[in-house]
Amino acid sequence: MENFTFYSPTKFVFGKGTEAQAGSLVKAFGGSKVLIHYGGGSVVRSGLLDRVKASLDEAGIPYAELGGVKPNPRSGLVYEGIDICRKEGIDFVLAVGGGSSIDSSKAIAAGAVYDGDFWDFYCGKPIDKALPVGTVLTIAAAGSEGSGDSVITKEEGMYKRGASGEGIRPRFSILNPELTQTLPPYQTACGITDIMAHLYERYLTNSKDVEVTDRLIEALLITMKNEGPKVIADPNDYEARANIMWAGTMAHTNSCGVGRSQDWNSHNIEHELSALYDCAHGAGLAVTMPAVFKYVMNHDIARFEQAAKRVWGVETAEEGIDAFKNFLISIGMPSTLGELGGKEEDIPTLVKNLCYGDGRTGTISGFVTLNEDDCTKIYQAML
Amino acid sequence: MENFTFYSPTKFVFGKGTEAQAGSLVKAFGGSKVLIHYGGGSVVRSGLLDRVKASLDEAGIPYAELGGVKPNPRSGLVYEGIDICRKEGIDFVLAVGGGSSIDSSKAIAAGAVYDGDFWDFYCGKPIDKALPVGTVLTIAAAGSEGSGDSVITKEEGMYKRGASGEGIRPRFSILNPELTQTLPPYQTACGITDIMAHLYERYLTNSKDVEVTDRLIEALLITMKNEGPKVIADPNDYEARANIMWAGTMAHTNSCGVGRSQDWNSHNIEHELSALYDCAHGAGLAVTMPAVFKYVMNHDIARFEQAAKRVWGVETAEEGIDAFKNFLISIGMPSTLGELGGKEEDIPTLVKNLCYGDGRTGTISGFVTLNEDDCTKIYQAML
Repeated sequence: MENFTFYSPTKFVFGKGTEAQAGSLVKAFGGSKVLIHYGGGSVVRSGLLDRVKASLDEAGIPYAELGGVKPNPRSGLVYEGIDICRKEGIDFVLAVGGGSSIDSSKAIAAGAVYDGDFWDFYCGKPIDKALPVGTVLTIAAAGSEGSGDSVITKEEGMYKRGASGEGIRPRFSILNPELTQTLPPYQTACGITDIMAHLYERYLTNSKDVEVTDRLIEALLITMKNEGPKVIADPNDYEARANIMWAGTMAHTNSCGVGRSQDWNSHNIEHELSALYDCAHGAGLAVTMPAVFKYVMNHDIARFEQAAKRVWGVETAEEGIDAFKNFLISIGMPSTLGELGGKEEDIPTLVKNLCYGDGRTGTISGFVTLNEDDCTKIYQAML
Repeated sequence: MENFTFYSPTKFVFGKGTEAQAGSLVKAFGGSKVLIHYGGGSVVRSGLLDRVKASLDEAGIPYAELGGVKPNPRSGLVYEGIDICRKEGIDFVLAVGGGSSIDSSKAIAAGAVYDGDFWDFYCGKPIDKALPVGTVLTIAAAGSEGSGDSVITKEEGMYKRGASGEGIRPRFSILNPELTQTLPPYQTACGITDIMAHLYERYLTNSKDVEVTDRLIEALLITMKNEGPKVIADPNDYEARANIMWAGTMAHTNSCGVGRSQDWNSHNIEHELSALYDCAHGAGLAVTMPAVFKYVMNHDIARFEQAAKRVWGVETAEEGIDAFKNFLISIGMPSTLGELGGKEEDIPTLVKNLCYGDGRTGTISGFVTLNEDDCTKIYQAML
């Protein structure tokens, strides 16, 4: 096991009706004027936004609001949010929504107290200082509710970049599984896939003697395997929604990923798919992971056999990967590039963007270092 | 799953040589004058205390020190520590040792900023405010390095009582598995037993639909089952020590115990054994747990069968409990009251103290509510 630091100072308030605590939580964490930041649509229609506002009213906390966050959140709205914070004297940003609303809120919170362009943080500057952020989560997927990370797309050039820092880790996150019950099955399945990807990216390690984190990751994968199909069959299954929601948060606070190298090549390879085809991140991951896993499995066949036996109840590495692929298909996820709208002739573009984008010089590194030839073969395997 | 709040804002700094960060961590969390609080013996002999002092010196942080903490830490030393804090203008308490040193440090930290008698907190008053506490952990067992709890024994009357509150949750905990390598096998085994008890007390629940926490607890139990024997066979096995140390912390931050009722009757029943015979808490738990589990297993036989299959690789509830008992014996733990120095004629006293101590009125409650007759039978089963 490798040396590590684990720090997860977010207060998680979990369960039915917990959004009613939004006002008192903002107050407890020192907020006196809030920007509520959200996407729109279901947050408004479901009445959630009104309930959050009522909770702030009850706590005597005034607020401004900014809706319109889209999947793969954009820089334009971030600049707008920063302006509102400065003009209105906002001292707390409350995200209501999924990973996109949370990531956009984090960017606003960091930019509001920074003299320069907030985009500096997305070019490598760590975020030490930001307005405090809280979240009311509506989809179990991204894990942003418990992380110090944010991903934003800059509209000029459509660059998608990440920023990190303790300053943007949420002070509190309200996790009410009821709020996820209105999600359509496809989005629910995308969330399940994203959570399982966060687990597999940690599972694929070159670190030795990591029994405790191996077992914790397997525990969460088994939970997803057992609870996932229940919510696809019955979207109103509160208990399964609850198990998935806590698994999703635990998957990404990194308590199960400490002290070990991690992979993240599947995320990198998928990133090019959602950039080119505007597909859902989870759907892209469903197509990507089995192809990547089969390509790299001989790097450590014992590790894939371990997952096959302990998680999927089969014997060989290949059977384990097939079981995972079939599981993803069974919850409604795609399994080929074509289903994402991709074509064979796009592969050279995908590979070029992947291996030379983001300042890379021909390879991507993780569990295995992959070059252009490797990545070409992986994309071809998705056909 | 039940509603819950999970808040674990302790910074864990884990790995070889990490005690060298003590000074910079105290500084980062606002300390400018420290009380170092410890037991003695091995902390001094091993040179650990000197290394911690060197780290504080390097960070330019002055310190006072108070050694002498004993297992089942006493109120007398707490009063002494509070006096030192006030006289010397201490603003940070640094525990160096195991659960006893940490619990005593927490009591000092709370008492130093309280006008009344610190014992008020151990009679039910929550600890909202305290000097910040940090820890350098030397034994994987109690989990106090990541909890907001403390247990102290008042010398007048030898009352053993607990206090809780966010104020005493450590700001940081330094976890260096190397520091546990000098522990004698018996103490190591007591720590392993204590960690497994923290897991079983959470596993025995009356809450339904708790797949994610069931799986997480099982993951940690399996880790202890696999790694425990390695450190008994080779005390210098760093990797096994590391896996056990993180499992011990994860077992007690409660991330695996949220949203479910918990038991804690084995702890209550053991408490009377260590009070009467001054045996090690872990050793008492090793004798207690199998007796309790067999007595209550029919309350939810499926739960015990689940542990038998998933953790111990056997079929029936009874086989699972026997496998656990044999595991504890194999790492050098006792299995009978006699081995703890107990006698059959003590049982009425044990039962009386258990069922009527601590303000109880004839029963103890948890997974199953137990009365005097039940508790008598459980102690008899330990003979």
